[in-house]
Amino acid sequence: MSKKVDAAEAARLLLKADDILILTHKNPDGDTLGSGFALCAALRGLNKRAHVVNADRISARYSYMSDEHDAGELDFEPRFIVAVDTAAVGLMGELSSFADKVDLCIDHHGTNEGYAETLWCDPEAASCGEMVYELLCELGVGITPYIANCLYTGVSTDTGCFRYANTTAKSHRVAAALFESGCDFTELNRLLFETKTRERAKLEQLAMAGIEYALEGRLAFITVTLDMLERSGCSASDVEGITAMARTIEGVEAGVTLREQQNGSWKVSVRTVTLDAASLCENFGGGGHKRAAGFECSGTAFDVKCVVCGAVEAMLG
Amino acid sequence: MSKKVDAAEAARLLLKADDILILTHKNPDGDTLGSGFALCAALRGLNKRAHVVNADRISARYSYMSDEHDAGELDFEPRFIVAVDTAAVGLMGELSSFADKVDLCIDHHGTNEGYAETLWCDPEAASCGEMVYELLCELGVGITPYIANCLYTGVSTDTGCFRYANTTAKSHRVAAALFESGCDFTELNRLLFETKTRERAKLEQLAMAGIEYALEGRLAFITVTLDMLERSGCSASDVEGITAMARTIEGVEAGVTLREQQNGSWKVSVRTVTLDAASLCENFGGGGHKRAAGFECSGTAFDVKCVVCGAVEAMLG
Repeated sequence: MSKKVDAAEAARLLLKADDILILTHKNPDGDTLGSGFALCAALRGLNKRAHVVNADRISARYSYMSDEHDAGELDFEPRFIVAVDTAAVGLMGELSSFADKVDLCIDHHGTNEGYAETLWCDPEAASCGEMVYELLCELGVGITPYIANCLYTGVSTDTGCFRYANTTAKSHRVAAALFESGCDFTELNRLLFETKTRERAKLEQLAMAGIEYALEGRLAFITVTLDMLERSGCSASDVEGITAMARTIEGVEAGVTLREQQNGSWKVSVRTVTLDAASLCENFGGGGHKRAAGFECSGTAFDVKCVVCGAVEAMLG
Repeated sequence: MSKKVDAAEAARLLLKADDILILTHKNPDGDTLGSGFALCAALRGLNKRAHVVNADRISARYSYMSDEHDAGELDFEPRFIVAVDTAAVGLMGELSSFADKVDLCIDHHGTNEGYAETLWCDPEAASCGEMVYELLCELGVGITPYIANCLYTGVSTDTGCFRYANTTAKSHRVAAALFESGCDFTELNRLLFETKTRERAKLEQLAMAGIEYALEGRLAFITVTLDMLERSGCSASDVEGITAMARTIEGVEAGVTLREQQNGSWKVSVRTVTLDAASLCENFGGGGHKRAAGFECSGTAFDVKCVVCGAVEAMLG
């Protein structure tokens, strides 16, 4: 298991180190990229050699971080390896060959496996970006507008722009500091939270056209078929946020989304307001969190809706 | 014109006063209600008699502020009148009979008419709720969870949950303080930002079904007809946020929404990313802000779209 350290100790390790390689997790999101690129820029500001590597291609939406700061080729032999926002070796993807060489892991997941030599983990932090902000303060590094943009990306994406339940007073305080360091929050908010592809917009429209209400509007079903994916031009990975839509309707206590799979079965996602989604899904061999859970099953969409409706009705009592 | 004061002076006036009537603006939104009810609770905490009056019925979505704190009947003769978030006498609605009796106005609109005896106006504030938070600190009042909920409602609704360009470092700092005072931000965010009526969801779906792209996807039109309102069960007032939808599509530089009016004309709303929406709309006798403007015109929807398309094409160059 890792030796556990705090922000000050993590800063001391970095101040002593040089030729630093920073690893992000696979399918990199705003928080791992924002944390990685901010840390890289800060270390370079301290006249150290530092470089970020990503297991997967970075989405074009995050190019303002990578383009400006260059992901390019690694041109030094790493002597200190940092992993950011990466709770498990399995999340390293193609970088997993580095797994037993990580000197420092900075993470906010309470489930961190402890694969690194030293671990600074703060499960109270809504984002890894907040932790890196704290670290840069410890390092005495000035927050440039570029660093502020990276860290704001981390904090805002992991909190759903300060909407999710994981948001804390500290998330807001860090955001305030990043505003004062010149982050371009107006443009970032537009890009990150108010932009969807034409394909995604079409899929949402098709999905909403078929929404069905049951139990006097306390239950809503959205069905996403393979045909809808084809008509909208979306791929399966574009479907993710769709599962949140059914619950947003006033009065709906359980929003259920059925996604047709290539093998003909259904992935069923359940989002609730007060009901226990995990225990609902356990009835069907699935599981998850209290307000967001899921299971997989076969049968016609009608069959699936019937059994789910029965189970929700029983829970509503 | 009003005598201008700051937070400290506004607090001194309130500390001397009693039997305080608090006026909100008509069609009360989250900020005017949150500011009014928070101030009322704080003044009652100082053992003063205070009461909030609203020109219009309070939307059910804000009942957690009014129900808990009672709007009820006014049971004292007001000796000091405060208006919150109300820039002009015209915004007082049925309360305009009080217009020349307002002792103190607390407002964040730079356009405030100065109808009150004294005015504390901070145009830098994103919300009136932030100002009331500052005022309560001056008054030395403890922020109860109820007050925190009211003020969070003000700050979050006027900033679009920290997304809009008016958001400031101070908005985030006040939010942080309200988190620490026990505001139930998870439930409030769900209620305020993730809940729409079935009727509104249906209208959005109908509107998105008819979205039209032009100029290689740089221009998008959404048309909301009277027939769509009827089919969805929406009233004209439910249409407001629809105008933001067209611009959210990736690549769209001008999102234009046509709303059919009872008299057969069209209200046209233009939202842009970088183009000057106001000068675009001035071509058609309208106006507005740089990124959000509008005009009204007659003709068929097709005619309107043709002329707008020509004007946008000319601006894109």
